[in-house]
Amino acid sequence: MSEAVAAAARKRGERRKAQTRAALVRAAQQLLAEGRTSVAVLEITELADVGMGSFYNHFATKEELFQAAVESALELQGVALDAWTRDLDDPAEVFARSFRLTGRLHRIEPQLSRVILASGLSMINSDFGLGPRALRDIEKGRATGRFTVRDAYSALLIAGGAALALGQAIHDHPERDDADLTDQVAEDLLRMFGVPPDEAVAICHSPLPDVLDMIHETLPDLPHEQPAG
Amino acid sequence: MSEAVAAAARKRGERRKAQTRAALVRAAQQLLAEGRTSVAVLEITELADVGMGSFYNHFATKEELFQAAVESALELQGVALDAWTRDLDDPAEVFARSFRLTGRLHRIEPQLSRVILASGLSMINSDFGLGPRALRDIEKGRATGRFTVRDAYSALLIAGGAALALGQAIHDHPERDDADLTDQVAEDLLRMFGVPPDEAVAICHSPLPDVLDMIHETLPDLPHEQPAG
Repeated sequence: MSEAVAAAARKRGERRKAQTRAALVRAAQQLLAEGRTSVAVLEITELADVGMGSFYNHFATKEELFQAAVESALELQGVALDAWTRDLDDPAEVFARSFRLTGRLHRIEPQLSRVILASGLSMINSDFGLGPRALRDIEKGRATGRFTVRDAYSALLIAGGAALALGQAIHDHPERDDADLTDQVAEDLLRMFGVPPDEAVAICHSPLPDVLDMIHETLPDLPHEQPAG
Repeated sequence: MSEAVAAAARKRGERRKAQTRAALVRAAQQLLAEGRTSVAVLEITELADVGMGSFYNHFATKEELFQAAVESALELQGVALDAWTRDLDDPAEVFARSFRLTGRLHRIEPQLSRVILASGLSMINSDFGLGPRALRDIEKGRATGRFTVRDAYSALLIAGGAALALGQAIHDHPERDDADLTDQVAEDLLRMFGVPPDEAVAICHSPLPDVLDMIHETLPDLPHEQPAG
């Protein structure tokens, strides 16, 4: 076997391995979204359509897989948030747009939303997703005097707790307008950060880029569901 | 059997029934606090030290028991909050004292705290505990002009999400001062409600009644653990 042939075989093997891992992560995300995390490994591998043995090539335990599944969802959202706020500089505007778009994702991407909500409060302190980005915005706002909060961690707990409570409320109350509620929470949070009330209103009710367009550009891997309403 | 004897027997029967129910609820609270809710009914009745058959005299399903256990914990806290704020009239002060005392409960009453945290975001919309009391305070504050929030439900989501995130952070970071962090979050929330910053500071850093004394007066049924720190 020539070296080129061996290298191609190695590459194929790596690609197959990555595909198996991705299939396991997707299956775990589906189970998380459905609240079915106390399943056997066999059920997970069947859902992922991979061999039972291959599970342990990638994960030592089910918990490790579910952790990876949550981090992957959070990071998918995080990458999207970065892309969607690239043109902004004011930390108040960056935070508000991230928060407003996140609020709109709950109905447009219900599976991604439910995986993130299932991760619960640990989302706030995760290295991935909205949490670290919100902390970055809060700290930048404090450093530049844009925000007057005395303690960044306290402000992060409030914003993170609010993001989760909002997501749950949007699922639990399909009759509510998700955009209106989200924008109101974002406005309240900016005021809490120390942004003057009239500015908070202006920032949180300004036109947004079209969320569906942005999702199709930046989250191409998700099976895009139509919003229910 | 005379009527008086029959009445006494009936009373004894009712008392025994109430004791069995209370033992089941306490066992469920212990399991919730330990995160062990996928146990068999037999394990619950053994932990409660009651007959397996008696379970179904009180609850149709395990879910029903766990629901009752959460509501009982929330209501225990709610009754305590009412007692602890009876002397206050200003909704900003009532909210702040309730929130500050709730924050201090996480370490002083870890089991009660973990049951409430396990109930997650449904705590916010429950008919029991901090949620409905916070909503009452927010609505009263809006009606009297004390608070300037535009939407009470949005403010409730933020305060409730913050209460949960704070509780989790207090458990996850034993090195942090729970009282300082709690008071800072309460201050931020009052500012978000529209209370002027200097007043929010004054209200949220004023002396509090001794929490341990108050707990021993109003929550006599709990096995009082000592704070870890």
